[in-house]
Amino acid sequence: MKDEREMTRVLKEPEERKAEIMDTAQELFHIKGYEATTISDILEKAGIARGTFYYYFKSKDEIMNAVIERGIAEQIQTLMPIVENNNLNALEKLKQLIVENDRKNAENADMLAYLHQPENIVMHQKSLIQGVHQSAPLIAQIIRQGIEEGRFHTEYSLELAEFILVGTSFLFDSSIFHWEREEYSARMKALADILETTLRTEQGCFKFLHLLAKKT
Amino acid sequence: MKDEREMTRVLKEPEERKAEIMDTAQELFHIKGYEATTISDILEKAGIARGTFYYYFKSKDEIMNAVIERGIAEQIQTLMPIVENNNLNALEKLKQLIVENDRKNAENADMLAYLHQPENIVMHQKSLIQGVHQSAPLIAQIIRQGIEEGRFHTEYSLELAEFILVGTSFLFDSSIFHWEREEYSARMKALADILETTLRTEQGCFKFLHLLAKKT
Repeated sequence: MKDEREMTRVLKEPEERKAEIMDTAQELFHIKGYEATTISDILEKAGIARGTFYYYFKSKDEIMNAVIERGIAEQIQTLMPIVENNNLNALEKLKQLIVENDRKNAENADMLAYLHQPENIVMHQKSLIQGVHQSAPLIAQIIRQGIEEGRFHTEYSLELAEFILVGTSFLFDSSIFHWEREEYSARMKALADILETTLRTEQGCFKFLHLLAKKT
Repeated sequence: MKDEREMTRVLKEPEERKAEIMDTAQELFHIKGYEATTISDILEKAGIARGTFYYYFKSKDEIMNAVIERGIAEQIQTLMPIVENNNLNALEKLKQLIVENDRKNAENADMLAYLHQPENIVMHQKSLIQGVHQSAPLIAQIIRQGIEEGRFHTEYSLELAEFILVGTSFLFDSSIFHWEREEYSARMKALADILETTLRTEQGCFKFLHLLAKKT
């Protein structure tokens, strides 16, 4: 029993230390910006030796990727109760995911603002790309559920999920494209039409996006 | 007559000088990269005073935008004979535009490679965004021609053009997403399906994209 506990401690520690270094880096990227943060800054704030840092990460780029991947994974985790809710059909799941994601983004607007600073563009773009890579399989899974329900019809569940995610992530990012309220509204209506046609589903299924457009 | 000529000369000169400064900046961005190029580098290479530079441009960011806008406008200009060809129907125009654009990108791969360097990410992203802004109205015009021909059916010609352009520009950019040959091919097939469904056109209209995918 004692041996097992010791084993757990030894195996767990490196992961914990790694997470702590990531927490420090994340905080610095947030406060100082990615470009201005140096590895020395991270060492000093985390109170670790250079060798310890390099035991876990090859470069600043690598720790940035790890911080982004973890952040996206955490965000997706909060949406999992919707994805895994057996009482929802595929359309209800997509609707709840979009509305909830929209609400979360509004709630975290201040926290996410640093990604919109010009000096954090590398981090911002990686974050959008990671978001697409990690979300696409989940959306594809919901599309496949919709196909089984006879509600959606497509041969390209994963590729379509990616295309929609790329389109929306970049087109509706306020630091990439700048839309007036009316322009934004027209693009959300077009998105509803794009979802309805590409999924070959009933017309009007995604009409809730028209309302979402008005709120913003 | 003489007055008029003098007027033309006076009015033309600033435009010419501005273009020359842009040529110099473009060359330096290309050779040294955007981040590493300073305004002093531009002044030195162009052989102009600081005041002359600031008469035309507020910042390095502004001259970058001007260089990108001009580059995209030139690229679009070479595609105009297709857009304006009265002997082509809307589908033929879209097909020729896609194939020609693809050929040009392959031809200019070496020249465009500098945009894929990590230090040029700001310039690269602006270039993709400018590409969408400048191309969307032309694609929308062709979609409207297709609607008049009874070939396409959509209420969102401009918004759809933008969405497709954003989706393809980012998804098929080799420095943003990295696809294996098989993955690329599946995404091109999905794109054909997305175009057919969103334009509510005949199935198989965009099948030529399957062949384009194989070539790459």
